[in-house]
Amino acid sequence: MRQVAILGIGQTSIDEHWEKSLREIGGEAAFLALQDAGIEKVDALFVGNMLSSLISGQNQLGTFFADWIGMWHQEAVKIEAACGSGAAAFRSGLMAVASGDIESALVIGVEKMTDKAGHDVTAALATAADADYEVEQGVSFVGLNALIMRRYMHEYSWKHADFAPFSINAHANAMSNPYARLHDRISVDQFEKSSMVATPINLLDASPTGDGAAAAVIVPVDKVTSIPSRRRVLVTGSSSVTDTIAVHSRKDPLFLSAAYESAKKAYAMAEVDPEDIDLFELHDAFSIMSALSLEACGFADRGKGVRLGLENEITPKGKIPICTRGGLKARGHPVGATGMYQIVEVVQQLRGECGKTQVDGANIGMAQNIGGSGATILTHILKAD
Amino acid sequence: MRQVAILGIGQTSIDEHWEKSLREIGGEAAFLALQDAGIEKVDALFVGNMLSSLISGQNQLGTFFADWIGMWHQEAVKIEAACGSGAAAFRSGLMAVASGDIESALVIGVEKMTDKAGHDVTAALATAADADYEVEQGVSFVGLNALIMRRYMHEYSWKHADFAPFSINAHANAMSNPYARLHDRISVDQFEKSSMVATPINLLDASPTGDGAAAAVIVPVDKVTSIPSRRRVLVTGSSSVTDTIAVHSRKDPLFLSAAYESAKKAYAMAEVDPEDIDLFELHDAFSIMSALSLEACGFADRGKGVRLGLENEITPKGKIPICTRGGLKARGHPVGATGMYQIVEVVQQLRGECGKTQVDGANIGMAQNIGGSGATILTHILKAD
Repeated sequence: MRQVAILGIGQTSIDEHWEKSLREIGGEAAFLALQDAGIEKVDALFVGNMLSSLISGQNQLGTFFADWIGMWHQEAVKIEAACGSGAAAFRSGLMAVASGDIESALVIGVEKMTDKAGHDVTAALATAADADYEVEQGVSFVGLNALIMRRYMHEYSWKHADFAPFSINAHANAMSNPYARLHDRISVDQFEKSSMVATPINLLDASPTGDGAAAAVIVPVDKVTSIPSRRRVLVTGSSSVTDTIAVHSRKDPLFLSAAYESAKKAYAMAEVDPEDIDLFELHDAFSIMSALSLEACGFADRGKGVRLGLENEITPKGKIPICTRGGLKARGHPVGATGMYQIVEVVQQLRGECGKTQVDGANIGMAQNIGGSGATILTHILKAD
Repeated sequence: MRQVAILGIGQTSIDEHWEKSLREIGGEAAFLALQDAGIEKVDALFVGNMLSSLISGQNQLGTFFADWIGMWHQEAVKIEAACGSGAAAFRSGLMAVASGDIESALVIGVEKMTDKAGHDVTAALATAADADYEVEQGVSFVGLNALIMRRYMHEYSWKHADFAPFSINAHANAMSNPYARLHDRISVDQFEKSSMVATPINLLDASPTGDGAAAAVIVPVDKVTSIPSRRRVLVTGSSSVTDTIAVHSRKDPLFLSAAYESAKKAYAMAEVDPEDIDLFELHDAFSIMSALSLEACGFADRGKGVRLGLENEITPKGKIPICTRGGLKARGHPVGATGMYQIVEVVQQLRGECGKTQVDGANIGMAQNIGGSGATILTHILKAD
C-alpha cells in the first residue's frame, strides 16, 4: 500500500440550515477542501451519508455530488455505515488511492437532517439498530444507549453527575469552534437538571443532530507539494472492525470489543501505542460512549473511563484531550458527516490551527467513528510530518 | 495494483421470497459463494444495496450481514449507487484487495423489494433520479426511460416492434436459468400487445423487480489454488464513471457518455477491444437501455443498436451475446443485487457452466451495471485463465 496524505480540508457550520439544500451543504464543504488543497480536480469522489434516502428522497449521492461539483465522467460512490458513514467513506477513498488505481480522492461526509420532523428523524436513526430484533421491540437509538449507561452505572457504581465532565469539556471546547452547533458553557448543575430523554440519558448527555458536511482531499504522500506555512498530515493508521448489530447479542455490552480490535489494528499499522496519541476525537454521541471508547482504546481500565473526566485529563491540557473542537456533544452530530468532521478536526490540531483549544505539540491524533451502538468502528491515526 | 481473481460465486433465485427475510436472502448467497470458493472466512465484506432503509427499515447492511454470517470483528461496509450498487460494491472490494490491505473479500449484492406495495417501491426507486429537479416534476423512473425511448424512436425512425428481439432473447435465455424470475418464452406479437406502462414502454420492455442476492469471493490471483475442474477467472478491467444525475442536464440524452468512458477505461485496463468480448451482460432495465449500451460500448454505431437484435447477433450464437442468463428483463432486477448477478453470470459463462445458453469458447466477458438513467456506470471485464 502506498502512503497517503491529507492535502486539504473543508467544513460547513453545523446548524439548522433551512436556507441550504443537501447538495449545497455537501458542495460547500467539497469546494472548501479543494480550495484548501490548492487543486481543482480529483480522480474520484467518496460520499459518506446515512439518511438522504429517508429524509431527502435522494439516493445515489456519489453521482449526485460529482454532478453538482462538476466532476462529470469521474468515479463517485456513496458509502453507508450508519453514524460511521463518514469515516467509512474516508477509508474507501484511502484504499482506492493506496491501491494505485487513482491518484487523488475527495471524501465528503454529509447529512441534512432538519427537513423532517423530530419523530421522523428518530425513526430514521433507528435504522442503525437491528430492525427485526431491536427496533421491533419499540426501542429507539437513544433508548439502547440508555440501557447501556444504566447498566454501566450499576456495574461500576458511578452516579449520573460523574459523567458531567465529558459534556462540560465538549461544550467548553466548542466555544472557540466557529463551525460548532452549540456555543454555551455548561455547569455540573445544568448537566444534572437538564430534561430527561431516556433514563438515565438527559439532554446534556446527548449530542444534538443537525445539517452539516465536512470534506478532505487525499493523495499519495509523494504528491504533496510543500506548503511552507503548513505541516503535512499523513494517514498512518486505518482500520474498520464490526461487532454484532444488536446490543443484546454481545457477551458484554459494556465493552466495545470492536473498538478495542479496531484501535489495536490502527495502533499496529501506525506503529504507536495509546501513550503516543496526543489527542483523540472520539464518538461521544452520548456521554456513556466517551467512557466506553476511552476504555476500549486503552486509555483507561474497564469501568474507569469516567475517572479521566473527573481528574481533568480529557481537556486540551490533559493527558488525553478528547472532543477538542466540541465533539459530537457540542460541535454537533450530523450523523453521516460526523466521521469526516472528526478527521478534519484532527488535521486542524496537527496543523496547529485550533486557537484556544490547541493541544500543545500535537503530533499524532486519532479519530474514531462509530456506526450503531458500537457495531461498526472505524479508527484513523494521523501524523504530522 | 495486484491482480485479483474471483474464487467463488453464489446466488439465490429471484422471486417474491415471502418466506425469507432480507438477512436470509443475503446470507444464502454469501454462504453459497464461500462454499463455492472452498473457504470459511474472508477479511472483509462489501454489501451493495439500494433500498433496505426505505423498504426494510434497516441501514448499516455491511455490519448487519457480517453479523448474520458470523464475520464478527471483520471489516464490513455498504455501498450504494442506486441500481449500480452491486457492481459498485464489487469494485470497492476489488480496490481493497488490490491495495494489499486485505487478502480476501466477500461481496454481496442484495435487495428485498416485495415487502412493500408497488406504489411504495415506485417511489423508492425514484430516489435514483434527481429529487429536486426530476422527481419534483412527478416523473417516475420508468417515465424518464420512456422519454428517452420515445426520443430515440423519433430520432432514428425505429418502431416499437424493432425492440422486441431484446426481450425475446432475454426471455429465451432465462428458460434454462434456474435462478431467473421469469420462465416464459415470448413472441413479437405478445411483446407488441402487452400492457402499457409509460408510453412507449410496455410491460415486456421493462424488467421485473424482485427479491434476490448474488455474491462473490475475491482474492489476489496468486492465492487461487487450482481447482482442476474449473478455470480461474481474473478481473482484468474495472471502471466506474458518472454522468449528470438528471437526464435533462445532458447534451445528448441518447448517448450514454459515461458508459462510453467507462467501457473505454475498462478496455484499456484489460488491454482488449470490443471485438475481443465474447459476451456482454448489459443493464437492460428497459429495452431501450440495451440499444444505448451496445452503442456506447462500441458494438454498434449511434442509432443502430436495435439492428443487432433484428439481425440475431445478440443471442448466445451471435456476434455479441447479451443477457445470456436472462438479463434484467427475465432473470429479474432486484436493483442493488443486479450488478452482482451480472458478474456471477459472466463467471458461469467463463467456467462453461451455462448449459443451453453457453457461449462457445467464452474467454472474455464484460458486465456493465448502471445506476440511475445512465448516471453511474460500472464496467468489469473478466477473463478465464
